Amino acid sequence: MCAEVVVLRLGHRKGRDPRITTHLGLVARAFGAQRLVLAGDEDEELFAGLHSVSESFGGSLQTEYTEKPMAWLKNFVKTGKAVHLTMYGLPFREVIPELHNNVPLCIVVGGAKVPRQVYDICHHNVAVGNQPHSEVAALALFLDSYVESPPVFDDAKLTIEPNQRGKTVHESGD
Amino acid sequence: MCAEVVVLRLGHRKGRDPRITTHLGLVARAFGAQRLVLAGDEDEELFAGLHSVSESFGGSLQTEYTEKPMAWLKNFVKTGKAVHLTMYGLPFREVIPELHNNVPLCIVVGGAKVPRQVYDICHHNVAVGNQPHSEVAALALFLDSYVESPPVFDDAKLTIEPNQRGKTVHESGD
Repeated sequence: MCAEVVVLRLGHRKGRDPRITTHLGLVARAFGAQRLVLAGDEDEELFAGLHSVSESFGGSLQTEYTEKPMAWLKNFVKTGKAVHLTMYGLPFREVIPELHNNVPLCIVVGGAKVPRQVYDICHHNVAVGNQPHSEVAALALFLDSYVESPPVFDDAKLTIEPNQRGKTVHESGD
Repeated sequence: MCAEVVVLRLGHRKGRDPRITTHLGLVARAFGAQRLVLAGDEDEELFAGLHSVSESFGGSLQTEYTEKPMAWLKNFVKTGKAVHLTMYGLPFREVIPELHNNVPLCIVVGGAKVPRQVYDICHHNVAVGNQPHSEVAALALFLDSYVESPPVFDDAKLTIEPNQRGKTVHESGD
């Protein structure tokens, strides 16, 4: 049994980042995180979109907003571990074996400006390649490597059956 | 030596998708594709942004626009292979061993509406998990698995040295 995995998204900007943060939330859910904590702008619409995906495809990604992400993070690391995804960090595949997945983990995903404190509060600063690319890609690769196996959503209303040529969707009750 | 890897992005909408498509382009570059072909809206600004990243961090992601992506794709598969990333497809880790990387590969990334033809023209429809998440995440995981080793950009002006606690950036000539 793995302990909780939380994604903390810093510096969300409602006008500018809606799709990026939605993708982060969907990646969090699909690759095995249980909770998304949003900082920056509040965004109920974003949360509603994520909940509607869980409603159809199962699972229950918890969402919450924090006005004070640094205080939130300092509190989290009293009992859990935190890693910060940054292109300046250490290779993630070298760091992950040092993490023990019986302890809650927070994965911090930066926004436009990441406070210096984040680099210090987190136990590890980890990079998914030292090139500029995408926090969505970084989160997916990190979770894919960290989480033992992808989550299975037993309560899904819609389930997709892999298909070489088209779309096969089962509705629960099929 | 691997043959060329091309990403074909369908249905780009200039007003709505700029950051998602930018992330796709950056992931393409960072994870070893050589070329981004854009369909949907033309977007010179997007291409300029991608070129400026290559200018600083090296490499030379080629960018081009096609008005007729289906004709472009039909022409490509005369000599190359094509895979379509879709949540409805077969598990990518099962498909990748069937691809031979001495043949050019096109990875098709859908937009809002993917024409049915895409499912038929492509040799494989592959899923990075059968859950809704992100084309950016899907492209990164696919490339990370497909490309033998991440690209090294010898002509970089800026190089990042992995750092556990801060930012270490070398300028060429350092």
